[in-house]
Amino acid sequence: MARKNVLYAQSGGVTPVINATACGVIEAAREHKEQFGKVYAGRDGIIGVLREELIDTSKERKADIAGLRHTPGGAFGSCRYKLRGMEENQREYERLIEVFKAHNIGVFLYNGGGDSSDTAYKVSQIGQKMGFPVQCIGVPKTIDNDLPITDNCPGFGSVAKYVAVSIMEASLDVESMASSSTKVFILEVMGRHAGWIAAAGGLAQQEQGDPPHVILFPEVTFDEAAFLAKVDRAVKKHGYCSVVVSEGVRDASGKFLADAGVRDAFGHAQLGGVAPVVAGLVKAKLGYKYHWAVSDYLQRSARHVASQTDVDQAYAMGAAAIKLAAEGKSGVMPIIERVSDQPYRWRAGEAQLSRMANKEKMMPKKFISKDGMGITAAARRYLAPLIQGEAYPPYGKNGLPNYVRMRKVLLDKKLPPFEV
Amino acid sequence: MARKNVLYAQSGGVTPVINATACGVIEAAREHKEQFGKVYAGRDGIIGVLREELIDTSKERKADIAGLRHTPGGAFGSCRYKLRGMEENQREYERLIEVFKAHNIGVFLYNGGGDSSDTAYKVSQIGQKMGFPVQCIGVPKTIDNDLPITDNCPGFGSVAKYVAVSIMEASLDVESMASSSTKVFILEVMGRHAGWIAAAGGLAQQEQGDPPHVILFPEVTFDEAAFLAKVDRAVKKHGYCSVVVSEGVRDASGKFLADAGVRDAFGHAQLGGVAPVVAGLVKAKLGYKYHWAVSDYLQRSARHVASQTDVDQAYAMGAAAIKLAAEGKSGVMPIIERVSDQPYRWRAGEAQLSRMANKEKMMPKKFISKDGMGITAAARRYLAPLIQGEAYPPYGKNGLPNYVRMRKVLLDKKLPPFEV
Repeated sequence: MARKNVLYAQSGGVTPVINATACGVIEAAREHKEQFGKVYAGRDGIIGVLREELIDTSKERKADIAGLRHTPGGAFGSCRYKLRGMEENQREYERLIEVFKAHNIGVFLYNGGGDSSDTAYKVSQIGQKMGFPVQCIGVPKTIDNDLPITDNCPGFGSVAKYVAVSIMEASLDVESMASSSTKVFILEVMGRHAGWIAAAGGLAQQEQGDPPHVILFPEVTFDEAAFLAKVDRAVKKHGYCSVVVSEGVRDASGKFLADAGVRDAFGHAQLGGVAPVVAGLVKAKLGYKYHWAVSDYLQRSARHVASQTDVDQAYAMGAAAIKLAAEGKSGVMPIIERVSDQPYRWRAGEAQLSRMANKEKMMPKKFISKDGMGITAAARRYLAPLIQGEAYPPYGKNGLPNYVRMRKVLLDKKLPPFEV
Repeated sequence: MARKNVLYAQSGGVTPVINATACGVIEAAREHKEQFGKVYAGRDGIIGVLREELIDTSKERKADIAGLRHTPGGAFGSCRYKLRGMEENQREYERLIEVFKAHNIGVFLYNGGGDSSDTAYKVSQIGQKMGFPVQCIGVPKTIDNDLPITDNCPGFGSVAKYVAVSIMEASLDVESMASSSTKVFILEVMGRHAGWIAAAGGLAQQEQGDPPHVILFPEVTFDEAAFLAKVDRAVKKHGYCSVVVSEGVRDASGKFLADAGVRDAFGHAQLGGVAPVVAGLVKAKLGYKYHWAVSDYLQRSARHVASQTDVDQAYAMGAAAIKLAAEGKSGVMPIIERVSDQPYRWRAGEAQLSRMANKEKMMPKKFISKDGMGITAAARRYLAPLIQGEAYPPYGKNGLPNYVRMRKVLLDKKLPPFEV
């Protein structure tokens, strides 16, 4: 039988650097030609695998594959689709194995977060059971930085850099005009369950009193009085107050602040957006003029301000996954191990998927300041290296980044259709 | 009498490159030492001048002055403060002249938009009348790009680049996941009266069908049915729809869509934000899953993704203002004259302040596509050069831009206090 092929799929929300991981996978596999055949990619992630929509990456131009290293989004497509437990949903797992069989897949690389680790782990088990063993390897990715065991997650560093740079810049703007205009600026960032992204805003503080003056974490129950008091103190001391708020902040009843009753013109609840809610509170209780921004997808696609550390790690995790495959491993995930904080040094390690699956890594308590609205020196030590280095995409003469697009040539189907 | 001093003041909303103009002023004045004494800057703009709070820029480190070229915000402070007509408010105009006299100011450079042109023009008149002639020179600045006569305004090009790059990146993100997740993405940008910034989003379109698929301008009355139909067509054709909406979009009754009744948890109306309103409409009428972002101050402080063309022009306008002063001119403003589109060439020109004052340059009709929701080839020809070139700020080892801060050493006061 010919060398086995590699199947790569992206999973869940994309990041500014998930394509760098894809690039690492494809370029590393090319260097193991004696062992691996082609690298296929699921179109739109696992859904494409179930539908037997497999992209033949060998049909892409080599320069475009190299360009994945600096292109945001998910170049082969991704999806939010969690396979349920094997008992309820054996049909889908079996289908995956059928697709693997039909296309001689020996290695399945699933590039995602906790859910994907779980799926990859289950697929490795069912392959065994069905007599078609496939090496299933997870590849870490999530802007939320909430995977266990790995020191940090590819994707997070670039979002962290975007948030730190953005709040630093917007704060300079607010400060310039605060004496006669906006006094409170609120930036909403992602992170529904863990406050890593919000914490990264704290990196903008280089000296005592620097903005952001307040950070609101999902880990800390929103205390309206304490929040308002801190905002007021900052305005009185610095002339303005700069706030980073996580979309996941909750009130004492456990309800997301973002769901606290914002209604549109048509009376529909929950447009999302905690920033306007917090801004309204500042206005109502303190009377300060405010502005707010919601960066939403901008933060997780801003490849133009990516962290070099993050890009390097994302690429390295892709290459490391192929290395693990070449060593015959299965049920594992390459991870990032921190060797030292300063100077920052790291290396690729390895963890069992069974230990990664469905676990979320929250911010440790020691990373959040006593008042619950800032970060500690320990957090700074951990976060700082992750935003180091600039990794600009190449730009065209037109002033826009030269992002690449895949041709996405699909393999001929060999199996009957499958309803997803 | 000694050489006269130069007084520089920033006015209105700041930009990513207004400090580059300040840098141009200070560095050019240094090269005319035979003619000019020191360069002072009004703290927080004209308010500081009225209060006799004048920053001595010669007390700043030379390297920090050079660093203004890459630092966003308003380094000396700015304000929104429009002097009223001379009849109603002769007191303030006279105070300005007293401050000028007290500190031997021979040149007043006012760096702002249409309002500032008006003020500078009036100050030049009253100086004459009071027997203390001061050369009053406007220096163009506004992200809104709505000044007449000048081909474009420093500040706009960098915001345009931010918007084009951001919508390009976010669209790649949305496209990757649209098959199973968000189908409509809406980015709100500034421009309450003129749609220049929204139009710049259109530069992200490099090929037919590229995002953004819909642009909503303040110049075009919002047509709900036409908008929804276009969004729906884009989703059906491309799998997703990417929208740029100006904060200034109005409905048929002339009301801002942003004011269309968004209420917070406390029942307060008008949090601002047209994006959530439009998103709610998409959800209610088309049922598509959406995401929205409001870039707010991020867009006008994003020096990290500034346009080189813009930075060059901002600096050049500052230097050109000093050149006009050295030539003995008053009541004028340096402007940008376009020599050719492709290759883009421009030069510094000169216009009478009386012709600039209080006029807004709207987008020409020929720049907006027939359906009112896109830009034309003519718009593209005009806009494209303004985002050309990258002008990254220097970064520290910590992964953050090395933005500078002024020491802001004030001159000793010589006059009695003045109530502003």
